[in-house]
Formats: sequence, C-alpha cells, structure tokens
Amino acid sequence: MRYDSKSLNQLIGELSKLPGIGRRTAQRLAFHILSLKDSEAQALAEAILEAKQTMRYCSECGNLTDVDPCAICSDKSRDDKVICVVESARDVASMERLREFRGRYHVLHGTISPLDGVGPEDINLKSLITRLAQEPVEEIILATNPNIEGEATAMYIARLIKPSGIKVTRIAHGIPVGGDLEYTDEATLSKAMEGRREL
Amino acid sequence: MRYDSKSLNQLIGELSKLPGIGRRTAQRLAFHILSLKDSEAQALAEAILEAKQTMRYCSECGNLTDVDPCAICSDKSRDDKVICVVESARDVASMERLREFRGRYHVLHGTISPLDGVGPEDINLKSLITRLAQEPVEEIILATNPNIEGEATAMYIARLIKPSGIKVTRIAHGIPVGGDLEYTDEATLSKAMEGRREL
Repeated sequence: MRYDSKSLNQLIGELSKLPGIGRRTAQRLAFHILSLKDSEAQALAEAILEAKQTMRYCSECGNLTDVDPCAICSDKSRDDKVICVVESARDVASMERLREFRGRYHVLHGTISPLDGVGPEDINLKSLITRLAQEPVEEIILATNPNIEGEATAMYIARLIKPSGIKVTRIAHGIPVGGDLEYTDEATLSKAMEGRREL
Repeated sequence: MRYDSKSLNQLIGELSKLPGIGRRTAQRLAFHILSLKDSEAQALAEAILEAKQTMRYCSECGNLTDVDPCAICSDKSRDDKVICVVESARDVASMERLREFRGRYHVLHGTISPLDGVGPEDINLKSLITRLAQEPVEEIILATNPNIEGEATAMYIARLIKPSGIKVTRIAHGIPVGGDLEYTDEATLSKAMEGRREL
C-alpha cells in the first residue's frame, strides 16, 4: 500500500524534472510549497505561467525578452559595431551582470554537436549572417563555452565569417582569477600559456 | 537601463523564496522553465495548484493527505498500539521510506520553542492527548529531531503522558552508521556512550 497521494507525487515528479533538483530536493520543495499560504503557492504558479506566456525570443538577436526587438537590440546607446555571440540567453544575463560590454548580442540557442545530430543549420546562425549583411558590424566576439562543442562552434563561425573581412575574436581561456597553478588542469594551463601576453 | 523583463524577474523572485534555492539557482531554474514546452510549464504550474488544493492535514494524526482520515490512519492492518510522534509530515515520509514501522503517527507541526514564542498550545499536541484517551495506545515513540527544541518538546510530552501509564520512548541518538568516532561531535559521542547497550 502506498500512503502518499497522487497530487503530491505529481508535484514531486514535476519539480524533480528541473535541472539540479533530485528526488530528495523535489520532495523538500513540495512539502514547502504545501506549507505555503494559498496565495503564495498561487503566486508561484502564476509567475511560471506569466513568464512563459510573455517571454519570447528576440527576432533579431535571439535573446529572451518580453518585447520584440529586445531592450538591448533597441537601445540606441549601445555599440552597433560589436556583436558578442553566446550559446544561451543565460549567457547574455551573465555578460550583462558584468556591465562592461556595451555592444550587442547574438544567441545561438545551442552549439554545433555532430554526435548529438546538431548541425550548423540547427542553431540560430543563419540570422547572424543576415545581421552581418545589414548592420555595420566590425567585430564578432565568440563567447561560446570553452568545451569541445563550444570550441568547434567558435571555429566554425570564425571560418564562416572571416572571408567577409570582419574581425573575429575569441574570449580568453586561462587560469581563473584567484585560481592556483597547482590545481589547474592541463588543458587550462596549456591555454593560459598559449594565450600569454606581453607586459 | 535594466534589460531583464518584469515577468522573468517575478519568476526568479518567486523561485528564490523556496528553501535552499538562492538567487543564482532561481535564475537557472527560471531560464530552464522558459525553455520548456508550453505544456510542460503548464504541467508544473498545475501540479503546484492541484497539490495545494487537494492536500490537507489529516484530522486524526496531522499528516499531509488527500483523503481524511489519511491512508495510514484508515489502514486497518497497522498497529493501533504504537504512535510515533514527529515534527512534520516530511518526517512521516522519511519513516515510511524505511518500511519498518507499522504503527501510526502523530504530526506536531513544529516544536515547543519559547524563544520563538511557540508554546505547547501552538503545536498539534492537544489532539494527541485526545487520541490517547480514545485509542488503545501502549507506546508513544518520540521521534522529534535531536536538537534543543526537539529535545525540549520530547521531554515536555514525556512528562505529560507518563502519569497515564503509557510507555514513552525516545529514538536513539548516536554515531550514524558509516560514521567515524574521530569526526563525531562531542554531544553525539556523549549520547552514544549514554545509550550504549549490552551485547
């Protein structure tokens, strides 16, 4: 005989589908939600539906937004000449937290990954080429993640764009600030040596 | 100028109210939810509302349930003579996972904690006394947590019930299985010595 109810199990099941939330944490969250006031649980459920309803991808850069084009694309004060290419809208959020980059973005929504059957036509790449033809872009910063797929995607885009004469750069890889030579893996150390700069 | 939208911020805000979910994790979850299919996000929101709507506290034992009395209270095959007293419905779930205890439960929904202004009348204790008068209970197992409030609550209940002649026991505290004497704190070690048993 099972003692827990269907709706509780349903909730635990749905919560445990979220990334980084295991069965145990999902259970903890479910019990917490059940201990909330009705209005609080309602607010959570509504925030999910509301966000899901209003948020879409910007037709220009692919960033998540509630207006189209997004606030970054329509911000006249930002630099038209630099486009930072990232894998996901999350990465745009990370970059924006930095408050340093004042150019525009292009979100790929993935990386080229032949093993997973994801080719160049499956990511948001075609629209980048279209943008390059229409906007006065002088530099493309490739800020995909420093893993195999991210590197391959960066290489692919670099080769695609270079013939057009636009400057293509890649963000630096190396030892993180506060890191330790001793505990740095070999791939990173090798990148750090490779990317060394004259002082 | 802020680039993230109101509904996204709302969702992140609601998610970060959950226990163990910080701002950063909430952001990650929010972006994940936005990447879900409409139907999947809907399923999550509905599971929250559905669970919140159907789940209530059992009028007998205080456990979370969708039928009243709960499945454990109405299960005739379970032992009427033992009641395990726990702090929360979560603890019932933990006990039930063990599949060892075949008695019934009583959920206190908290602990006595004078510092927080929680007295004996603020927890689900009165109904336990009522149950003792109506049910053929022979043993009360006090399974509140082994911290100050849990211990104080256990002591209080023990003193309350003992005059009635019902056997009152407390779950054992000691070194966890797989634990290490060397790394065990003094309070636990002291409990382990105190609770030693003849072999």
